[in-house]
Parts: sequence; structure tokens; C-alpha cells
Amino acid sequence: MANSEGNKLWGGRFVGNTDPIMEKFNASIAYDQRMWDADIRGSKAYVKALEKADKCLYGAFVVKPGDEDIHTANERRLKELIGEPAGKLHTGRSRNDQVGLFTMWWNTEDALQLVATMVERASVEIDVLFPGYTHMQRAQPIRWSHWILSHAVAVSRDVERLQEIRSRTNVLPLGSGAIAGTPFNIDRELLRKELEFDGISINSMDATGERDFVAEFLFWASLCLTHLSKMAEDLLLYSTKEFSFIALADAYSTGSSLMPQKKNADSLELIRSKAGRVLGRCAGFMMTIKGLPSSYNKDLQEDKEAMFDCFDTLHGALRVTTGVMSTLKINRPVMEAALSPDMLATDLAYYLVRKGLPFREAHGLSGRAVFQAESKNVPLNQLTVEDLAAISPLFDRDVAAVWDYSSSVEQYSAPGGTARSSVTAQVQHLRRWLQDHTQ
Amino acid sequence: MANSEGNKLWGGRFVGNTDPIMEKFNASIAYDQRMWDADIRGSKAYVKALEKADKCLYGAFVVKPGDEDIHTANERRLKELIGEPAGKLHTGRSRNDQVGLFTMWWNTEDALQLVATMVERASVEIDVLFPGYTHMQRAQPIRWSHWILSHAVAVSRDVERLQEIRSRTNVLPLGSGAIAGTPFNIDRELLRKELEFDGISINSMDATGERDFVAEFLFWASLCLTHLSKMAEDLLLYSTKEFSFIALADAYSTGSSLMPQKKNADSLELIRSKAGRVLGRCAGFMMTIKGLPSSYNKDLQEDKEAMFDCFDTLHGALRVTTGVMSTLKINRPVMEAALSPDMLATDLAYYLVRKGLPFREAHGLSGRAVFQAESKNVPLNQLTVEDLAAISPLFDRDVAAVWDYSSSVEQYSAPGGTARSSVTAQVQHLRRWLQDHTQ
Amino acid sequence: MANSEGNKLWGGRFVGNTDPIMEKFNASIAYDQRMWDADIRGSKAYVKALEKADKCLYGAFVVKPGDEDIHTANERRLKELIGEPAGKLHTGRSRNDQVGLFTMWWNTEDALQLVATMVERASVEIDVLFPGYTHMQRAQPIRWSHWILSHAVAVSRDVERLQEIRSRTNVLPLGSGAIAGTPFNIDRELLRKELEFDGISINSMDATGERDFVAEFLFWASLCLTHLSKMAEDLLLYSTKEFSFIALADAYSTGSSLMPQKKNADSLELIRSKAGRVLGRCAGFMMTIKGLPSSYNKDLQEDKEAMFDCFDTLHGALRVTTGVMSTLKINRPVMEAALSPDMLATDLAYYLVRKGLPFREAHGLSGRAVFQAESKNVPLNQLTVEDLAAISPLFDRDVAAVWDYSSSVEQYSAPGGTARSSVTAQVQHLRRWLQDHTQ
Amino acid sequence: MANSEGNKLWGGRFVGNTDPIMEKFNASIAYDQRMWDADIRGSKAYVKALEKADKCLYGAFVVKPGDEDIHTANERRLKELIGEPAGKLHTGRSRNDQVGLFTMWWNTEDALQLVATMVERASVEIDVLFPGYTHMQRAQPIRWSHWILSHAVAVSRDVERLQEIRSRTNVLPLGSGAIAGTPFNIDRELLRKELEFDGISINSMDATGERDFVAEFLFWASLCLTHLSKMAEDLLLYSTKEFSFIALADAYSTGSSLMPQKKNADSLELIRSKAGRVLGRCAGFMMTIKGLPSSYNKDLQEDKEAMFDCFDTLHGALRVTTGVMSTLKINRPVMEAALSPDMLATDLAYYLVRKGLPFREAHGLSGRAVFQAESKNVPLNQLTVEDLAAISPLFDRDVAAVWDYSSSVEQYSAPGGTARSSVTAQVQHLRRWLQDHTQ
Repeated sequence: MANSEGNKLWGGRFVGNTDPIMEKFNASIAYDQRMWDADIRGSKAYVKALEKADKCLYGAFVVKPGDEDIHTANERRLKELIGEPAGKLHTGRSRNDQVGLFTMWWNTEDALQLVATMVERASVEIDVLFPGYTHMQRAQPIRWSHWILSHAVAVSRDVERLQEIRSRTNVLPLGSGAIAGTPFNIDRELLRKELEFDGISINSMDATGERDFVAEFLFWASLCLTHLSKMAEDLLLYSTKEFSFIALADAYSTGSSLMPQKKNADSLELIRSKAGRVLGRCAGFMMTIKGLPSSYNKDLQEDKEAMFDCFDTLHGALRVTTGVMSTLKINRPVMEAALSPDMLATDLAYYLVRKGLPFREAHGLSGRAVFQAESKNVPLNQLTVEDLAAISPLFDRDVAAVWDYSSSVEQYSAPGGTARSSVTAQVQHLRRWLQDHTQ
Repeated sequence: MANSEGNKLWGGRFVGNTDPIMEKFNASIAYDQRMWDADIRGSKAYVKALEKADKCLYGAFVVKPGDEDIHTANERRLKELIGEPAGKLHTGRSRNDQVGLFTMWWNTEDALQLVATMVERASVEIDVLFPGYTHMQRAQPIRWSHWILSHAVAVSRDVERLQEIRSRTNVLPLGSGAIAGTPFNIDRELLRKELEFDGISINSMDATGERDFVAEFLFWASLCLTHLSKMAEDLLLYSTKEFSFIALADAYSTGSSLMPQKKNADSLELIRSKAGRVLGRCAGFMMTIKGLPSSYNKDLQEDKEAMFDCFDTLHGALRVTTGVMSTLKINRPVMEAALSPDMLATDLAYYLVRKGLPFREAHGLSGRAVFQAESKNVPLNQLTVEDLAAISPLFDRDVAAVWDYSSSVEQYSAPGGTARSSVTAQVQHLRRWLQDHTQ
Repeated sequence: MANSEGNKLWGGRFVGNTDPIMEKFNASIAYDQRMWDADIRGSKAYVKALEKADKCLYGAFVVKPGDEDIHTANERRLKELIGEPAGKLHTGRSRNDQVGLFTMWWNTEDALQLVATMVERASVEIDVLFPGYTHMQRAQPIRWSHWILSHAVAVSRDVERLQEIRSRTNVLPLGSGAIAGTPFNIDRELLRKELEFDGISINSMDATGERDFVAEFLFWASLCLTHLSKMAEDLLLYSTKEFSFIALADAYSTGSSLMPQKKNADSLELIRSKAGRVLGRCAGFMMTIKGLPSSYNKDLQEDKEAMFDCFDTLHGALRVTTGVMSTLKINRPVMEAALSPDMLATDLAYYLVRKGLPFREAHGLSGRAVFQAESKNVPLNQLTVEDLAAISPLFDRDVAAVWDYSSSVEQYSAPGGTARSSVTAQVQHLRRWLQDHTQ
Repeated sequence: MANSEGNKLWGGRFVGNTDPIMEKFNASIAYDQRMWDADIRGSKAYVKALEKADKCLYGAFVVKPGDEDIHTANERRLKELIGEPAGKLHTGRSRNDQVGLFTMWWNTEDALQLVATMVERASVEIDVLFPGYTHMQRAQPIRWSHWILSHAVAVSRDVERLQEIRSRTNVLPLGSGAIAGTPFNIDRELLRKELEFDGISINSMDATGERDFVAEFLFWASLCLTHLSKMAEDLLLYSTKEFSFIALADAYSTGSSLMPQKKNADSLELIRSKAGRVLGRCAGFMMTIKGLPSSYNKDLQEDKEAMFDCFDTLHGALRVTTGVMSTLKINRPVMEAALSPDMLATDLAYYLVRKGLPFREAHGLSGRAVFQAESKNVPLNQLTVEDLAAISPLFDRDVAAVWDYSSSVEQYSAPGGTARSSVTAQVQHLRRWLQDHTQ
């Protein structure tokens, strides 16, 4: 029987031809090429475990039209190099049990670089104050470094999360066969050590059909990108003409094809947009695996494109964010001019608390002061002591000390707060953390 | 001032260089190339409206490294061909108001072809009976053609939906500028006619920032793919060894790299999987546009890759489904052998209804007959008249007529039912519909 | 055989008890109650079609613990009122073919009210100018009404879209039975007329298992909410201290439990948030139906909670948006003071275009003027004619006319533009549209 | 100034009334009540840290119409009980920094119970063989226990994942104030110990605006439910008439309101459906937080309903799955009769491998044997030795030993395989694991 299927692995019993549209619909070789290295590493370890061959030397490697996927292509090339024994490469292996090898190239370098950049910038600009916002409204004076570190901390959690996911999912599936396991005394422990996995899969049927590590990676990238989208949104606000707190370097801005005066923070808009793209990949993959029967189904082929796209998108976003953060210029006078006395209304309430009032009552009285200042159309700190005393007899001349922004921020010296000492402690904490998480 | 930015449209006032990573992150040229034709059609119409030029002759067109997007690339090429006047092409235009031109290549041909294939197959195999399932359990005997048409009808709704979306979103945005409109007496009606749009956008600010047509297309493709996923799931069930109702052509099957006997319906699994991919793109794009401010933001650049990927995925899936449906073989004896007397329990209840019982009571009595047959471990039609009479005195010898599958299906002659006349009417309806929707 | 299952419709043959956890997991009565009216309307029409009864009088209706779903509950109540003939109500009907009746309560009133509110406000405040933004950067002067109408137009598209979806999905499923159709000469045309549907379903198997109308509604609500989220984001920006263009009425603001001076636009933040919630429901439902086999599966029970939640969320958001838009106060002096000469850089380029330069060249020269003004640290309109003439000899004294914001916006008089005449035309267009879409 | 706002926390400076629709749209009290316990625990610890009060005795607690959220309601009640000092409860606290307390009620009991149930069932039924499927096609003989354990292993990963997420996100946010931190020498370490957190938040701005723990929980529940959906899909297949491998207990089945013979596995369909619902919540929440500015925005209020709904849905699904798995009956004769000789084609190839052929070649020869058996229309094991020898001279009489299913499964004795020893090892592994993860 002539085998009309070229070098397809499963050519034995079919007699028809594959519809070319189907062939294209089915092929994963276009994105599989990225797994070349992993496939070869896996194959080499497997070969060792089979104790049948020892070295697979690969020369120039060119994907050919008939190659269905990377595993087939690699075997074809091996055959060109060493002849028939190449056919032994897949003894007791299914293509499915190779896909799990690819957690190995997850890395946290770009995220760590971003954290490091932010921490050092926070250290340098620790004396700059500007408004902290809640609900997009000016809330309380904070340090610019406090803002920087709030995002650095979020990315540091992402790093820890990925390291944890990696160590949890870094489990060798090789030796699972198609569903029932492997019948050759494959030493799965040897394979594990060769490939530097932390464990071996417990059940072969589960191992061939589960893609938890893919789903977890996709969601991890999504969550990391929502952190970057939050930071991008802040920076986009701060770079509006109305805020004017920061100016991006030209390297991260673009102009308008219509309006000559425009300088747009495209880099930040792109970063903001990518959370959608990546979460979409994650949701799509979850939908694909929903309700699938056990073990391998071709639906799972969606895993790789999703993983590669999210990987590239995330790493691009991390690098551009690092570039933006290391080159943007702050406009300190504008930032400090944006602090206004009403942002000290909470301090005014604390003033009363220190004189013995319960906070809820002090809050109400401070609110009345705000109301009166608005009614008189003066800044809150321009109310006279008489004005204030009419609201509460506890107000006295010493209230003047409330209206100092630098003193205000120094109150927040508990861990995590915006006082100089507290922000310095955060910088030191993150520097240590970076040392612990980089080698 | 040296212009270090090459041919970027917005080169006037920037002095720095763009970060190469940012350049890559920002570039859309890779997928923009698909809009080449639409950009040129739009440009030609726009040129006419400007009454400044009449023909843009394009020779070999090669995208160059510095081309930021397709609009820039087209203008560059035009300049090479006709010199400086090319600079007039974008007078009063922004790149943003060109993107809406691309509803024009949506088409329904592949979907119509699938419906036509199914209708003709339904017509030919109208006499084949097999079990209709609800909750994956055998429910009532139906015609195989009834099943085919149930999916054809769903796809016909998809066709109507896309035609309706197209005619609703087919609105010319050209002449919206960047946000405020166009200041040159551009005749938007002329542009509309040239480009065969059905209307012009009402508000320039809305026009530059809305991507409803993208979102609608992505969701349309998602819903269409859930229909295909349902059909694929049915066919995957029917092609299991346990059902054995159908066999796919080899052209739509693949084998196993491990198990020589396997013939897998990969085509159907891929079709089933794609609903996830495409809905993921849709959900991702919706997330990207959530909470964006008005008018154009670079986030919107996500629109094109999403649209192209979904377009290609859907059309691949439609074509493969057509191929599968036109080549699969049914196993009529197995299908008919799968009909069993308990599937006529509803008919047994109807028998009592025709003798005057309310349906709820008849349903209860038929349920008891089923229970008794199970208890006696005989098929439902092997209960004796005495057995049945003990359940209800209304049961008589004429109950024997209930146990005929061909008679059973003929009861369902109301429109939409599984009787021969009703299925024939469905075929005729869809043939007329196809004529109306094809030209 | 004792029937231990109370009044469950399918009590005939089961002998075990249902696990109470399963009963709760299975029950839909909690949200089904909302379908009470529709179930009764459907039942009444069905009864008419059966020509067996004429009136079902319902008194006080109380759901009882054993009622599995609304259809069962209604039949139980009918039986209490009219006795055994109530059992005829479901002759030839399955519960599944009743669910499609519920498109009837979709309505567009709240959306129309919002459009009307915006159009009238736009009409009143047509003379207010403020900055139009692209990429969150000041782009060109526009009318405040132009902004209002950009959102009104988006919501008007939502209205048209829902009306179109409704008329397309408003198809009677009754008479489809469980899968095969109905065996009693039910006049489906009579049912259709009684229930005011526009058509009858073509294929009974499709009719019982398709939920396109649910999916389409969920996505429709999602897209409408992204429009509201965009408007909310704009208004949140405009209500920051930094922009100060608008102030929300207290009725749509809340304060801070900590900071007495805070006035937060919670209403807008909630509106912005709901796009996520509703798209989540949509994506979730799509995932649920992905890969389901044909006809009814219990998975479809997810349809109703999703639909009700999205319906309520959307209508709440529309009403709150209407409230916000009808009560917010604009700060015209601040809005107009935010216009700056650099926003006329495009006009400066147009000045050169009118003197014969191609736009691309004019754009570049205007960009140089912007650069020079920045270098000299003066506003763009403070460059002397000599400064400009050094950039291009085409600049002359008449360039002074460029620096008038009111003249600038009047240039955009093509349809959709921001000129007074064009905005007035948009108002008139939408007023007519409102008349056409309300009765 | 009359305070028209009742007991709202922020009543000081507002003068208008809240729109009732807005009030409803804004209120979270309906679902906040579930946090009652956590709020009180948090408050008690906070009170201790303030060293101002020592005991908050709560009697009957009834939510009143004016209560905006649970924090307000608790403070109101405290005031009724102890008077004005209750106002001190929120000194230096914002409502926002309380929400993070709610990781405490995540638990893994239901998931552990499911694993335990499956492990014990696997242990008892270890001798039952049945077909293992890939691509929904019969692949190789496996143990029924191997199937059970494949799902138990997946759920055990879910347990580990939740425990890991909990220990990573179990970080005290109290003491973060609204954004800047707390100004009173609150001992955050004391609070941490009181509330049994593993760490304290590093940065107050990050702490008030991050909802990573919510997002992670929602995704965790989604992934767990995809595992349950996979198991449900398998069981739905196995409970079809065509497979007939299992029968669900009546307690987890329902009937049809139309078809008296039907017994539907509604429980499994519901379980399958919930993955969509929960992933939808997750995707919706991610969309809500995408692009939000730093710190608290009201959009974050979506967190709680999502978390509660997913929590309830997941736990219902876990319990019902446990019920299904502990009560279903297997049909061993049918399962074993479903094994067919073609499922041993891989073993036939292995036979040749053991005689020295490379696997790829052996696979091709075994494929030819399958093809020949199909051509001759005989089972694979009915090919004569002569038939086989014509395909490869390596085939000999000893090939007869290949056709034994019990021997076949025993080949797969490597860790994770389906041999008795290997499955027993899996049972033992999971029993130990259960001991380690339960106390």
C-alpha cells in the first residue's frame, strides 16, 4: 500500500487524501516552531532514558510543507541525519506527553527589571509630594515615591505568583503515553532529573489531558497586565495637560498625522490595551477546555498560540513600561502646586480626635468646616479661628499647624504609610526582595 | 532640525528617537497589510472628493521597515510614484477615519454554501430515522434530516444576522477628521456613493472612537461558532464506536502517532475548539474598550488583529464543516437499530390523551408502564395488554399500533415537526431562502 | 406505587429521593418567578389553541417549596382552581418550548429617555466650547454639545440594535414539544397571533435547544454598557479637580467615610464598572453553551439568571446616567479657559493648505512652529509673523485670523462636524429619530 | 445644617438628596451581610489595637433601610449598644481597608471530601477494566480506577492551589487608611496576630486598591469547575444508552415533563454548566478592574457579589459531584464488553518493538494489520499468523499473547500508569496526601 501521506506519523491505515483546507486548519507547525528547543531537549532526555542513543546532532533545520507539527518535523530531521534508528525516538511516547515540557522558558527577568527600575526611582525622588487620589478625586498628600512603590509592590506579587505557579506546575508528563502510561521500563525519575522538573505526574490519563499550567500562565499574564493597565492609566492622567505632572520621553510618544502640536502617550495606551487581549486569550482557552472529555482532544491545540501570544505581549509590555518609567520626567512644581488645603480636611478631623472627640464626630465637624469654606469661597486654611470655633470650641490657634503638607505626610509613619521613614523602609524591603529573587 | 524619524507622518516636532522595543510594540503594519486594498479604495474615493487627482497607479508594493502603518505606507508609495502632490492625500483626513471602511469584505458565501450542502443532504436522506436526544438521552424517534436541518436553520440565522449587522454598520466615517470633522468642503455624500456605503456617520467624535462594527462582528463570529461547536459535538458523539451512526471521510480525520488503529475526528474537535478562541477575542476586545475616553485612543489598535483572526478562523471552520458534511457516511442500519420501544412512551401517553385523559395523568400512567417494563426486564412494547390494562382500563388491543417508529414520526406534522411533510416543507423553505440570499 | 416526589411533573417512574443539595442546585424557581406573567400569557394562548378551555383565573399566587420551576407552579395553581382539566395544559408541550416567550419584555424606553435628555441638553448648551481630546490630550476646540451628541448617537445605535434583534428573534417556539414537534393539530399560526410573535420557528429541534436570543441580548447589553462606560469615563475626567469642567448633583455623588472634603462621583464609577459585570455574564453564557449537544440540556438553565441580571443592571445604569446628565452643572468659564493656541496648530496647517501647500508639508511646517513656540516658551499664537515667515514665506499678517476659537469650530460645517450648523442638524436629526422610535 | 442623609458616614457636607434609583444602584448591603462576621472580627481586632475599647457586644442585628453597607450598619448597631464611643471605631480606618479580611472563609473541605470519596471508590473497584478514550475514540484498555484517579488528582491540585493562594494573599490591609496609611500609632503587627494573617501589606496605596485575592479566587474556582466539567462530560457520555457504563442514583437524576421514560442526568449537566458562569464572573471582574486608576474606585464594589456567587456555585458543585460519585452504579459487564481487539493495536506494535523494530516502523506495520482486518471485516485478533507474517516476518505464534486485556494493562507499570501496582500506588499516594492536607 502506497503511503500517500508523506511523513505523517499516523500514515499506516488511511487511504484517502486530506482536504488541503483541513490540513491548514489542522496544522500547528507555524507556531510550534517556538517549541523546537524544548522538543529537542525533551527528546534528548527521552533518548537517554531509552538507553538507545546518545546524541542527536542537528544541523540547519528547515520546516517542510508536509510537517504536521514540530514533533514530526524534529523526527524527520533526525532521520535525515542518522537514518532509521530515528524511528525509535517515539517508542512509547505520544506527542501529547511532550507539550508539558514548556514551562521551562517562563521567566521573571523583565518583571524584576521593572521593579528594580521603580525602586531606584522611588529612592531618588522620595521628597516629591503630590496629591493622592481616590475615586479620581484629590484625597490626601502623598509622596510620589509612595505612588511608584504601590505599583512596584503589585509587580513584585506577580513575580512571586509566577515563581510559585512554575514550581507547582513544573511536573514531568513524559512517560504518560497516550493515556495508559508507558510500557517500557522508562525511568521517569531519570527523565525528571535530566529535564530539571520538580516532580513527575501522578496519573497518566490526567497528565495527557490537563492544561492547568497553560490556564494558570494565561491568567497570571492577565492579572499582571491589569496591574500595568492601572499604572498606565495613572500615568495617562498625569500626562494630560490638565494634570501636567509628568512628561514622557519622546522615545515613548508619538505624534498625530493630523494635529502638529500633539504628543500622544501611545506607549501607555498600548500597555493599557493589552490586559484585554491577554484576558481574552485566557477566557477563550477556558471556554475551549470547558466540557471536554478526559485525556487528549484536538481542541487542546489552542494552548500554544495562546501561550506564545500572551508571553510575547506581556514581555513587550513589561519592557516598554520599564522604558517609560526610567525616562519620564516629573514636573515637581506643578505636582506640589496641586496640593490644596481641602486635602487636609482629614488632618483637621484628626486634630479634633487628638483633642478627644470620637472620629465620626470629628469627621462631621471637619465636613462642616469644608462646607463653610466652600460657602465663603475661600480655601479651607483661610477660615479664621473664629469661623472654626463656631463649629467646635475645641478649635484653637494651634490649628494653624495642620496646614503644612510636609508635616501631614509625616503622620503616616506606620508600616506601609507615606511618611519618609515608611517609604524608605519600603525601598529597603524591595531591594532585599530583589536580591532574594534574582541570582 | 534634522528629522530623525524617516517617513513617519508626525515627524515635525519630535527630537528624540523611538525606543526600538516601543516601535515594535506600536507597529500594526504586520496585520495592516490586509487593509491595503481598502485603504486604496478609500484613498481613491477621497481623492475624487478632493478633486485634486484622479488616478493612483500602484506598481509593486513592498512594505519597508520604517512604515508605521498601512496608511503611511500607501502614502509613501504614492509619493514615489507621483511626487509631492501625494502629500495632499491626507488633507483633512486622519488615519482614524479610514478604519471604518473595512466592513466591505464581510461575506456570507461560506455560510450559504454550508446551508446549501446541508439542505440538499437533508433532502436526499429524508427517510432515515434515528434517535433524537435530549439531555444526551434517547428521547423520541426523529428523521436524520430533521437533525441536519436543525443546524442548517441555525446557520441561516447567522447569515441573516451578518447581513443585518452589515447594513446597520455600513456607515461612512470618512470626513470625520481626528475629532471635529473636516474643514474642506468634502462632499461626504459623494464619498458614500463611491464607496458604496449605506449612510454617513452622524457625529465626527463618535465616528472616530466607536468600534461597534468590530465588536458586533466578533460576537457574530462567536455565536456562529457556538452553532458549529454544537453540530461538531453531535457528530463527535455520533462517530464514537458506541454510537457508530456516522463515519467521517479520511480527508477530515487523522490518526494517532501512538495507536495504529485510531481514526480521530480532528476536524470536528478543531471546529468545536474555535468558539472559545473567537469568543476570547471578542471578550478581550470588549475589555480593551471598556472605560476608554471618547474619540481615538491607541488602545483601539487591537481591533484589526482580532477581526482578521476571527474572520480567518470562522471561514476556515465553515469550509471544513461543509467538507465534513458533504463527505461523511451514515450507517443507516445502526441508526435505526438504536430506536427502542421506550422512546415511544410519549406516544403511549398520547394514546391515552386521545382516549380523553388529561396529558399530565396520561404521562403518569405511561411512566408506570415504563417502570413495570423495567421491573420485568422486558422492552416496553413487550408488556401484554393485560399488564397495561392493570395500569389503566383505557389500554386496549389497538395499543399495538403505537409501537411503529414510522407512524410515530408522522404524528409530528405541525410546522417545524419531524413528519415527512413537515421536513419536506423545511427543505423547500430553506431552498427558497437560499435563492433569496444568494445572487 | 407511592409518588414520593410531590408535584414534580416527571414523578411517574422514580423511586428514590432527590438529594436536598441537588434539589437546591437544580431549582430555578427563585428567578423563574419573573416569568410568571409570560408563562401565563403563553399558557392562555396555548389553551386557546388546544380549544379545550377558555379562561384561567388566577387568584393569589404563592410559590410552594415543592415547586420545581414556574411552569410546574402555574400548573399546580391552575389545578387548585379548576381541578383535573388543568392537567391538559401541557398536552403536547414541553417546558422547554415556553422559554422563548420572554423577548416580549425587552424595551427601549430607558435608552430613549437618555437620548432625549442628551439631545435637549445639547440644544440648550450649543454655544459652549471646550477642548476635544484624542489620546487624552487636547486636540481641537469642539462644542460641548458635540461631545453630548457623540454619546447620544451611540445610544441611539443601541436602540436600533435592540429593536432589530427583537424583530429578528421574536419567533414563536411553542409547538416544538421536546424535540420532535407537536402531534396535536396545534395551530401554531393562531398561537403566534395571540402572542404577537413575528414568525414561528422553522425546526422544532433547533427551537428547543437554541438560545441565540439570550446570547444576543446579553451582548447587546454589554455593548450598550461599554458606551455608557465611555461616557462615564469622560465625565469622571471632567469632574476631577484638574479638569473642573463639570460638577455632579449631590444626588449622584457620595462622600468619604474618612475624608470630609471628598465628593466622589460614585454613580459614574458604578456605571463604568457594569460593562464588566454584564460582558462577564455574556462570556459565561457563551462558554456554557459551547460544545453542548443539540436540543435541550439542563446547562441552558443558566440563561434566565444571566438575562435578568443583565436586564436589571442595564436599566439601572441607563436611568442613573439619565439622572446624572440631566442634573450635572457645567463650568463654562473653566471649559473655555482650557482652550489653548496650540490646539489651533491644525488650523495653522490648513492656513498653509489654503495657500496651496500639500497637507503633509503644511503639517510639517506647522509642527516646526509648535516646536519653535515651545523652544521660546511662548504660546503658539505669540510667535511673531517674522518667526513664522522664517518657517515658511507663505505666512503673512492674515495668520492672526487663525487664533480665534469660535471661527475655528465653524470651519467644521460638513455633516457630522462641530460647526454650529452641523451640530444643530444633528440635534434635529435625533429629534426626528426619537419621534420615529417612540410611540 | 440639617443632615438629611440619616446615618450615612459621609453626611457632613452634602445638601441635596440622593436619587432613590442611585441609592439602589449604589447599595451593597444586600450581599454585604455575608461579611458581617468578618467585619466584626476585624473591628474587634482594630478596637484592641486602638486600645480604646474592649468588647463589642452585639445583640439581635437587623439591617435597616438607610444602611449603606455592612460597615455602616455595624457601626450603627454598636452606637445603639454603647453610645457615642462607637464613633471611635473608624478612627484612622477607611471602609476600603476592611474588605481584604475575607480570605479567611475560603476552605477546602468540600474538595477534600470529593477527593476522599473518589480515592476510596478507586480502591474498591480497581479490577474493573474499560476503554480509555482519546479524541472520544476507544484508545487503550485502562482501569476504571485509573479514570477515577485522573479526576481525583486534578481536584487535589485545586486544593493545593487554593491553599497556596490563601497563604500568599493572606495579608493584612488594615492600617492603610484611605490611601496614605494610618496616622495613629496602630500596631499593625498586633492586628495581624489577632486576625491570624500571615503578613501585613507593604504599601497602603496598593493595599486599598488591589483586589488580586478576589481575581485569584475567581479564577481558581473557574479552573476547578473546568475540572468538574470534564468529569461531568465523561459521566454524561458513560450514562448514555449507547455507552451504558454507569447509572446515576435517582437522587441525582430528574425526569421529563413530556417523555415518561426519560431519566436525565441533570446533576451532571448543571455541574458542566457552572464553569461558564464562574469564568464569566472572573472575566467580568477582570474587565471591571482593567484600566482603573490607583487606589479605591467604586468600581471595585463588584468584587463581593462575584466572590460570593462563585463561592456558592463551586461548593454546590463539589457537593453534588461527591454525591454523584458516591452513589452511581457501574455496569461492569458492559464496560468490559466494550473492550475490543483493535484497542490492542499499540500492543501489537510494541510486540514488534520488543523484537527489535524502531517504534515508528512497528506503528506502520500494526496500522497495516488494522487496515487488513477492516478490509476482511474481522476483528484484529482474528487475523491469522499467516496474515500477520505477510505484513512482517517478525510476527509469530506468540502474538496470541497480545490479545489479553488484563495482560495489556499490566504493561503500564511505570509510575502513573494503569497497571494494578501503579494504580495502587496512586491510591496510597492520595491517601497520604489527604492525611497531610486535612486536620
